[in-house]
Amino acid sequence: MATIEDVAKLAGLSRTTVSRVINDQPYVTEEKKKRIIHAMKDLGYVPNSSARRLRSQRTETIAVLLPRVTNPFFGHLIESLEREASKADYQVIVCQTHDKKQKELDYLQLLKTKQVDGIVMASLTNDWEDVEPYLTSGPIVLCNEYMRVDGVSMVHIDHRQAAYDSTTHLIRQGCKHLAYASGAHKTYIALERRAGFLEALAKYDLPFDTDMELDWALDVSDGQKVFQFLKEHHPQVDGIFTGSDEVAAGIVYAASQSNWTIPNDLAVIGFDNQMLSLLMVPAVTTVEQPIDEMAAKTIEVLVEKMSDKRSSQNRRFIYPYQLIIRDSTKRHPVSSSAQL
Amino acid sequence: MATIEDVAKLAGLSRTTVSRVINDQPYVTEEKKKRIIHAMKDLGYVPNSSARRLRSQRTETIAVLLPRVTNPFFGHLIESLEREASKADYQVIVCQTHDKKQKELDYLQLLKTKQVDGIVMASLTNDWEDVEPYLTSGPIVLCNEYMRVDGVSMVHIDHRQAAYDSTTHLIRQGCKHLAYASGAHKTYIALERRAGFLEALAKYDLPFDTDMELDWALDVSDGQKVFQFLKEHHPQVDGIFTGSDEVAAGIVYAASQSNWTIPNDLAVIGFDNQMLSLLMVPAVTTVEQPIDEMAAKTIEVLVEKMSDKRSSQNRRFIYPYQLIIRDSTKRHPVSSSAQL
Repeated sequence: MATIEDVAKLAGLSRTTVSRVINDQPYVTEEKKKRIIHAMKDLGYVPNSSARRLRSQRTETIAVLLPRVTNPFFGHLIESLEREASKADYQVIVCQTHDKKQKELDYLQLLKTKQVDGIVMASLTNDWEDVEPYLTSGPIVLCNEYMRVDGVSMVHIDHRQAAYDSTTHLIRQGCKHLAYASGAHKTYIALERRAGFLEALAKYDLPFDTDMELDWALDVSDGQKVFQFLKEHHPQVDGIFTGSDEVAAGIVYAASQSNWTIPNDLAVIGFDNQMLSLLMVPAVTTVEQPIDEMAAKTIEVLVEKMSDKRSSQNRRFIYPYQLIIRDSTKRHPVSSSAQL
Repeated sequence: MATIEDVAKLAGLSRTTVSRVINDQPYVTEEKKKRIIHAMKDLGYVPNSSARRLRSQRTETIAVLLPRVTNPFFGHLIESLEREASKADYQVIVCQTHDKKQKELDYLQLLKTKQVDGIVMASLTNDWEDVEPYLTSGPIVLCNEYMRVDGVSMVHIDHRQAAYDSTTHLIRQGCKHLAYASGAHKTYIALERRAGFLEALAKYDLPFDTDMELDWALDVSDGQKVFQFLKEHHPQVDGIFTGSDEVAAGIVYAASQSNWTIPNDLAVIGFDNQMLSLLMVPAVTTVEQPIDEMAAKTIEVLVEKMSDKRSSQNRRFIYPYQLIIRDSTKRHPVSSSAQL
C-alpha cells in the first residue's frame, strides 16, 4: 500500500507539503496541489482517516447526553441518532447523566477538551445559564428536552399538549379521581406535562388532590410502589397519568396481583409507546413520539453547525405525536364525537 | 477563588513552576515543591481538573463497547460499570457496535487518538488478532465476551454450562422436540451456548433437528416470528432455548394470541433475568448473571491497568450464574432429585 512518502517522492515535493494538502491546510500553491493529487491517484493512496483526524483536531465524534440508557425511549433515540450520524460519517458516543447536574457538566467538558466535535443534549438538568457557556467550545442541539430560551436549536414534541390530551382521554373514559406520577426531577418537560394535566382537569371542573401526586416514579418497580401507595391511601383512585410506559407496566403488574381490574377499577396511561406497553396484559395506552424523524432533524441541524462555524440561525422544531388507545384505558367505547 | 497566579505570587515562584507541580512534571526541586504546596493550602487553591486533564493528556474517560443499549442486559451492565468507574473518578462513554466489525475497530481507535484512557469490550465481533494490536495504545478488558486467548483479562460466566443447565431443565420437564434460537452473529459466547445445548441433548439421547434452529432472533418482534415459523413448519415443537428474554417474551406473546398454552404446549426459556421476563404472563424462566459483581471486577482490573503501565498479569474471572425457574417451563413439578 502506498504511503505518504511514496506520494511525496512521486510528486517531487516534501512530506510536509503532501500532508498540508491532505489536511486542507493553506500555503500550498494550486500547481503543487495538482501534482500531489495526481500522484495520490496514480498510487491509489488513501489518507489514513484516524491519522488525519489526529492532525486536524477533529474527532468526527458526536456525544449524546441522556438521562439513562435503560429507558427504552432513549435506547431507541440513540439507535436513530447513530444511524443518521453514520450517514454523515460521524461516530456517536453515549453519555448517561442520571439527571445529575455535575455529570451533565462533566460530559459537556468533552467539547472543551476536544474529545468530541458536537453534542446532542437529550438530558437537560442544569439551568440554561450554566449550559450556555459551553456553546463557545462547540455546537449543541437539544433533542426531546427544551426550554423557553433562544440561542440553541431544539427538536421536540409539545409535552404539555400530549399530557392534556392523555388526561382528557382518561376523563372521557369516566375517570374522576386522577393520580399523577412523574420522576423526581423538575425538567422543563416535567413542568409542561404537569401543566397540561392540570389544564385538562380544570377544563372538566375536576379537582386535583395533590396527595395523589407521586414524584419519584421512574421504572417498573416504582410503578409497583405507586400502585401499593394508591391502593392503601387513596383507594378511590380510578385513573392515573404516569408519563412512563415502565411505571404504567409496574402498575398493571401490581394491580393484577391485587385483583384490581384494569381499566375498570383503574385506567392507566403510559408514555413513549415502548414494546413493553404492547406486551402487558392488558396492553397499555400510550403516547408515541416520532423518534426517527426527531433524530434525523437533530443530526441534520448539528452537522450543519459542525461544518460551518458561522452558522446558523437557531430554530425550534416541534413534531406531532400520537395517542395510542389500548385496553388499559378502554372503560367504555370512545365516543365518536371525541375531540381526540 | 484563588488562581494559579495567586499561588505563584505567594510562593515567590513562576507560574510555570506551579504548573509543573500541579501536573506532576519533573525538574522541580523538593524545596520549591514544598513552597508551592504550602501556598496552595494557604490559599485553598484547587487545580481545575479539566485544564489539568488537557495538559496531562489523560482524559479520565473509559469507553464501553457493546452491541446495543436497547438490550436491557447491556443497559444494566452500563449502569453498574458507570457506578464503579465513578468511584475511581473515571467517566464512561458508551459505544454501540451493532455487532459490526468495522464499527468495533472505529471505536477501538478512541484509544489511539487518546480520546479515552481505557476500553471495556462487552462486544467482540472481530477476530482477536485484529483487536490485539490496539493493546499497544492502551488497556482493554473483556466483560461478558470471552475467547480462548491469552494477553487480555476477561470477566464472564460459563455460557456453555448455562446453556447446558437450561436445556437439561427443559428436558427434565418432558420436552422432546427442542428448538434453538440465537442471534446471527457467531461470537464465541454464541458458539459456547450452542455447544452446551447440543451436549445436553446428547446426554439424554435426544436428536436435534437443525431445521428447528433459527439464527436471526434478537428482539421481541423476532420472537413473534420464531413462534410463527415453528407453529407453521414444526408444530411438534414443545420446548425452546432462546438465549434472550426479549425473544422469549415475543414467543410467549405470539403463543397467547394463537391459543397455544405456555408451558404445556411449548416451554420457553430466556436469558439474563430482565424485568420483562418477570412481567410476562406467564413469567419466563431465565438465567441470571451477577452483573454488578462482574462490572466491579472489570473496572477494578481496568483501573489497575490504566494506573500502572507495566501492569499486570492477565487473568480470567469466571462468575457463577443462576437458573431462575418460572411458569414458562413448569410443565410438572421439578423432581426433588433434579441435579439442577
